[in-house]
Amino acid sequence: MANSPNCDLNSLSPLQLFERVTEQGEKVRALKAGKAPKDEIDAAVRMLLSLKLSYKTTTGQDYQAGLPPKDLVLINNGTTKEEDEDLVDPWNVQTSNAKGVDYDKLIVRFGSSKIDTDLINRIERAIGQKPHHFLRRGIFFSHRDMDQVLDAYENKKPFYLYTGRGPSSQAMHVGHLIPFLFTKWLQEVFDVPLVIQLTDDEKYLWKDMTIEKAHEYARENAKDIIACGFDINKTFIFSDLDYLGTSAGFYKNIVKVQKHVTFNQVKGIFGFTDSDCIGKISFPAIQAAPSFSSSFPQIFNGKENIQCLIPCAIDQDPYFRMTRDVAPRIGQPKPALLHSVFFPALQGAQTKMSASDPNSSIFLTDTPKQIKTKINKHAFSGGRDTIEEHRKYGGNCDVDVSFMYLTFFLEDDDRLEQLKQVMESGELLTGELKKVLIETMQPLVAAHQERRKQVTDEIVKQFMTPRKLAFEF
Amino acid sequence: MANSPNCDLNSLSPLQLFERVTEQGEKVRALKAGKAPKDEIDAAVRMLLSLKLSYKTTTGQDYQAGLPPKDLVLINNGTTKEEDEDLVDPWNVQTSNAKGVDYDKLIVRFGSSKIDTDLINRIERAIGQKPHHFLRRGIFFSHRDMDQVLDAYENKKPFYLYTGRGPSSQAMHVGHLIPFLFTKWLQEVFDVPLVIQLTDDEKYLWKDMTIEKAHEYARENAKDIIACGFDINKTFIFSDLDYLGTSAGFYKNIVKVQKHVTFNQVKGIFGFTDSDCIGKISFPAIQAAPSFSSSFPQIFNGKENIQCLIPCAIDQDPYFRMTRDVAPRIGQPKPALLHSVFFPALQGAQTKMSASDPNSSIFLTDTPKQIKTKINKHAFSGGRDTIEEHRKYGGNCDVDVSFMYLTFFLEDDDRLEQLKQVMESGELLTGELKKVLIETMQPLVAAHQERRKQVTDEIVKQFMTPRKLAFEF
Repeated sequence: MANSPNCDLNSLSPLQLFERVTEQGEKVRALKAGKAPKDEIDAAVRMLLSLKLSYKTTTGQDYQAGLPPKDLVLINNGTTKEEDEDLVDPWNVQTSNAKGVDYDKLIVRFGSSKIDTDLINRIERAIGQKPHHFLRRGIFFSHRDMDQVLDAYENKKPFYLYTGRGPSSQAMHVGHLIPFLFTKWLQEVFDVPLVIQLTDDEKYLWKDMTIEKAHEYARENAKDIIACGFDINKTFIFSDLDYLGTSAGFYKNIVKVQKHVTFNQVKGIFGFTDSDCIGKISFPAIQAAPSFSSSFPQIFNGKENIQCLIPCAIDQDPYFRMTRDVAPRIGQPKPALLHSVFFPALQGAQTKMSASDPNSSIFLTDTPKQIKTKINKHAFSGGRDTIEEHRKYGGNCDVDVSFMYLTFFLEDDDRLEQLKQVMESGELLTGELKKVLIETMQPLVAAHQERRKQVTDEIVKQFMTPRKLAFEF
Repeated sequence: MANSPNCDLNSLSPLQLFERVTEQGEKVRALKAGKAPKDEIDAAVRMLLSLKLSYKTTTGQDYQAGLPPKDLVLINNGTTKEEDEDLVDPWNVQTSNAKGVDYDKLIVRFGSSKIDTDLINRIERAIGQKPHHFLRRGIFFSHRDMDQVLDAYENKKPFYLYTGRGPSSQAMHVGHLIPFLFTKWLQEVFDVPLVIQLTDDEKYLWKDMTIEKAHEYARENAKDIIACGFDINKTFIFSDLDYLGTSAGFYKNIVKVQKHVTFNQVKGIFGFTDSDCIGKISFPAIQAAPSFSSSFPQIFNGKENIQCLIPCAIDQDPYFRMTRDVAPRIGQPKPALLHSVFFPALQGAQTKMSASDPNSSIFLTDTPKQIKTKINKHAFSGGRDTIEEHRKYGGNCDVDVSFMYLTFFLEDDDRLEQLKQVMESGELLTGELKKVLIETMQPLVAAHQERRKQVTDEIVKQFMTPRKLAFEF
């Protein structure tokens, strides 16, 4: 969740306020534990008290540690969210359901389309091979205009892939890899150009971070992305802070989008307020512009009308709803989208992983021992309270985080199905399921680390240099 | 204005802090008056003290109720104009007075300083020659921190000049030349680098115009600017649409400014509304960024702290009030300013010339015949209703547009003074004064046209290529 430096507390939702109080409480405890100077502790305590006051004013309840506010009011689309709805926007994902966000409801709310068996079969026919398990298992579950992309592909018309990342910290966790692993597969099966945006400008605008730090994170994150195995001849990775200053085509598209989106619109879509900085307010255009091929004249030879396909997590959809709204008005094709579910935190599927909590995630820098400890200690279990009950009634795979992780990372369909059966029958204990997960994640992360070591600064530089790719346009 | 107690106070401007202290003071009084619980009052008082401390740290002054921080008094005054005040902002200049805008009042309202005899004398001493007639005649009448620029100059510290133009149409009129003629003189007497911004992006955002058209106007206008005689080795002219895509330094400064200015602020300064496009809302940062030398690493060798001096018409001041407010918060020096009066329309000084009305202006493309006809037909006269009355009572130079134009373009002080005397005594008829103006403007415009013909596309390209200038940094 964005710790906005520009913080009109009145504009925060009860949940955001709750999280701010919780964070500030932790900060106070840390300062006290670290024997910080008295005035520093006092200032932090004053801040805590004032946050608690705001919380009470907003919710009408006293803050209670560990008890989030019951009625989540979604302020970001200007309408009141119903009590049982999930909160999903580019900065927040929150649900009260241990199974995670209700994605069918989200499809209806966002107005996207479900990736159904027909579409998966059509993809299989088009590419002549079995679709990725992320598609088969509903991890990429929603889309916009994927049929058009397949029409184009079947008619030998070109398209390209666009995905991205906000480089908020040096360390990425395994959940961050999901869109990249899937994008890599898409690139391989369709053999198309790929552009990857690193929004270091966004992170500078949203976080308490220098521009140099944001830029450094972008280059560090690029190494992890490259380590997924992207083809250097077919992939262009760019930092906004660098690329905006090297491509007139990119800026021209940004300013075109900025002319066709009002403050009222971004207020409705993203929940911006009058107290937000003008950088945040205009940023959505910067995430929109790579959806148009003319932002990359060096790749597409200046061609304006090449179809774009964006694989991303569903929380990024608001940016692209806006983009699709603007596209026809600036004479550009609408980008198509493939949406993924969120990757759950180890502690449970109520929220997505957070790079700021080291125990909520398996990081790409974790040692085998850390992976083992984290999974054993923190992975939310779908098992019963006692071994006896578990044997008798079976475990619940729908809420078991180890099982969820295996749906992402265990490629063998038969093995996964078998694990589900023995877990639900009670034959398999959660400890044993955790062991399977540990044995799956340890080599996966170790292999990533090994590949990342091969990614030299020179290779990063090559990926990030604006250039022609191995395609003719 | 955010009334939350706990923003990152360091990110607030002096004026924002001032408003926060004021609000918090009111809150404390309200709590006391309402006999609120003691702990609540205490918390509010603690917050008030901490806000006052932040104010003192930021401004170096104690907070005083009703006395906003100097230099910033009017940053949010877009909405508080009194009825009889002139309307002056980057898009409108309007006054009910035939003599034109009341510039003394404007100095007070904008919080700038008058260019007085002392300052003019100091400039004369510094440069060792007679100051430009624009200075001597009060055409450049207001400034901010010009003393600091002279301090720097006298101490052999470098500074640079920045001015610009919004290229709204292909044809420029003689009034558009005023800042450029003066800037050219400044560059010659101080021998410093000059950057000239052509805000083609702004024109695209504000007008019903394609991006290509705006860009084309920028190049056409560059020819007229170059024809003023700027030194190609000391001058960099840039179109935003081009330069933003060739300089990472420029974009970094833009995003820094954008992080430190809220929608509330630009609403106050420029009168933007929720229905304005996000491009307009974030544009002020693009006009602000050239005030910082790091926007031009190729010229200043990446140096961040070189003083900037901006000669411009007073209607552009709101942009630079904002810039000066942001500068210290992003570790940059505040730009200094020299403000000119507006150039009157032929029809009278109530409004500035408009490029959209061909009869309101003498255009740089006008033939001698057109100039003669326009002046004879449209130049507002300060003469009396009949020749007899004129001979008896004399004419009024304060409202006579021909005389006003001569103060801009007739360099001979003695001749101008003599014309004023014979006009006011009734000896000279307005028709004769018009004749003097026609004889002044015809050769001036013809000479400009001659010089403009020499400006080839190749010369424009050279001026507009980012490069090192003839200075070492």
